[in-house]
Amino acid sequence: MSKQILVLPGDGIGPEIIKEAVAVLVAVNKKHNLGLELVDGLIGGAAIDQHGVPYPDETHAKAMNADAVLLGAVGGPKWDALDTAIRPEKGLLAIRSKLKLFGNLRPAILYPQLASASSLKADIVSGLDLLIVRELTGGIYFGEPRGIRTLENGEREGYNTYKYSESEIRRIAVVAFEAAMKRNKKLCSVDKANVLEATVLWREIVEEVAKDYPEVELSHMYVDNAAMQLVRAPKQFDVMVTGNMFGDILSDCAAMLTGSIGMLPSASLDQNGKGMYEPIHGSAPDIMNQNKANPLATILSVSMMLRYSFGFAEVADEIELAVSKVLDKNIRTLDIQSEGCTIVGTKEMGAAVLAEL
Amino acid sequence: MSKQILVLPGDGIGPEIIKEAVAVLVAVNKKHNLGLELVDGLIGGAAIDQHGVPYPDETHAKAMNADAVLLGAVGGPKWDALDTAIRPEKGLLAIRSKLKLFGNLRPAILYPQLASASSLKADIVSGLDLLIVRELTGGIYFGEPRGIRTLENGEREGYNTYKYSESEIRRIAVVAFEAAMKRNKKLCSVDKANVLEATVLWREIVEEVAKDYPEVELSHMYVDNAAMQLVRAPKQFDVMVTGNMFGDILSDCAAMLTGSIGMLPSASLDQNGKGMYEPIHGSAPDIMNQNKANPLATILSVSMMLRYSFGFAEVADEIELAVSKVLDKNIRTLDIQSEGCTIVGTKEMGAAVLAEL
Ligand SMILES: CC(C)[C@H](C(=O)O)[C@@H](O)C(=O)O
Ligand SMILES: CC(C)[C@H](C(=O)O)[C@@H](O)C(=O)O
Repeated sequence: MSKQILVLPGDGIGPEIIKEAVAVLVAVNKKHNLGLELVDGLIGGAAIDQHGVPYPDETHAKAMNADAVLLGAVGGPKWDALDTAIRPEKGLLAIRSKLKLFGNLRPAILYPQLASASSLKADIVSGLDLLIVRELTGGIYFGEPRGIRTLENGEREGYNTYKYSESEIRRIAVVAFEAAMKRNKKLCSVDKANVLEATVLWREIVEEVAKDYPEVELSHMYVDNAAMQLVRAPKQFDVMVTGNMFGDILSDCAAMLTGSIGMLPSASLDQNGKGMYEPIHGSAPDIMNQNKANPLATILSVSMMLRYSFGFAEVADEIELAVSKVLDKNIRTLDIQSEGCTIVGTKEMGAAVLAEL
Repeated sequence: MSKQILVLPGDGIGPEIIKEAVAVLVAVNKKHNLGLELVDGLIGGAAIDQHGVPYPDETHAKAMNADAVLLGAVGGPKWDALDTAIRPEKGLLAIRSKLKLFGNLRPAILYPQLASASSLKADIVSGLDLLIVRELTGGIYFGEPRGIRTLENGEREGYNTYKYSESEIRRIAVVAFEAAMKRNKKLCSVDKANVLEATVLWREIVEEVAKDYPEVELSHMYVDNAAMQLVRAPKQFDVMVTGNMFGDILSDCAAMLTGSIGMLPSASLDQNGKGMYEPIHGSAPDIMNQNKANPLATILSVSMMLRYSFGFAEVADEIELAVSKVLDKNIRTLDIQSEGCTIVGTKEMGAAVLAEL
């Protein structure tokens, strides 16, 4: 029985990095006879250009049919002037929401070969390996009512609604505890329970779910302190779980601790393990079509897909090992360059990984 | 004409650090005949213990009468079990709101003497001097409706409202542009305009205010990117302006870049320059009553008060110079210790500053 993967290159450097990742996917598919089948689709600015909307029905139909989705990146200055309702980012939010991909896994791993790329001191970050579990289909990103309205006194007001229900909190807490069980059994839940009622409930439900995971050491931290602690001593964390907005901020902060966001993949999973996989970096329009982008985060997204959605852990290991070997050879794209390395382009980096497979 | 300062020691290490700061205030008051008069009051847990509420009417009356407020810190495990409505933090939120202290200035400065305390590499942070301007009386901290309700399906939902009106945005933008004019004329406004309507209006109004400050170079950044950029290259920023929630997170992140949050003061100002001054660190109940807390952030808060609320810039300079001289002598509290330094307690640190005055 074949498994379908929807490939959504998106905008900016998206198509370039996706091309290299797809080459890796095709190679392991053939080598191990994985039965994977690829389908192409449009999202973001690319979809706006062809269909006028960032997440066309056609793409949605393909996504529903697929067993997993591989995404490049969306957005760029070309579409910045558009009304927010039809901006490329809305395509990303739409696919997350419509596929119910509530469980966003964002690892922040420092590759030993790239330790010097971090802006932090070596002893603070060496060996860093933390996982941020971010709720992805709720919270203030999707809360209604929202908009800009005119007040009685004639001035306008912009407003959004931050909300989480018990079941939304419970299911993401379960994802986080399960992840912690597979790792070092330490979970830190991040909220702002001293100010926001929505996160008072968050804390209560996380405590409740904790009863089913007595082996996991649970702690709670306010979001401002979490931002501080990530900078001060990130290795104190194993798994962190938080809502959509805080997760957006903290996962980017954590990723940047490694100094090499061009290396970090992510997974967004639904209740059944169906997932969308994408690099955590953006569409970097400033370097598009220049063969400069680092395809490794997207290649590692393929590896995450094989591991989480298809259970091909050994093939995933193989890809990760290939990436590691390429780094060992001091082959680097511009974003992760260091003294004495060989700087290569997007295509050459992709080819180097393929050569190791 | 005498000027009144309301002193609110608060909880945890609050009373200890306030004592040293007050000693400094009393000393410069006498030396320069500043005409300052001190009044004491209760806030936070200390107020709950005596009056059952974290911001008693009596304290509010004193605060309204005063020309400035000096605050220690609030909160501690003793009051953690209380209903959020009467927790110590609510006292802080109440005084900010009732005194209309919407303009929160949070400098993140790396003292050259403490450069090694940072978890970041020296070249990334040396010379760091950025100012975060945080909106303090609006946004999701105060937005209504808020609470925990039961949905039709029987489960509970926690909800908060994030909102900003044009006038709220305009007045904090003015504070930020004015601050930028006195510094390096670079302002970065932080929002999440690609997702949140409330911040779409934020961006629009900041652009509008910018027209009155043609000399200031204005940029906009999404909050997730801002968290990244603070870690990657914090010296790219001069002044940043943002809402209450984002400001809470980013200012703590920025403060921690210096590695010495025990050194950082803050000011919260109303429309007329009346202000509350407090260290950015918390009440640190774990070290209370042990003569371990660093009083310098509170002493520097006194200096900020003299500068911003009373216009005594030279006296403020004098206090800052005294602090710098103490650091030059390698006198340190535990939190900022380094090799070869003399470790002293709260009282001794206060005395050392006094001796330099
Ligand atoms: C592009 C944007 C809407 C998105 C988000 O905020 O979720 C991005 O920052 C991310 O983290 O994936
Ligand atoms: C104690 C808390 C309510 C407060 C806040 O979130 O504003 C604190 O973190 C701060 O930044 O001053």
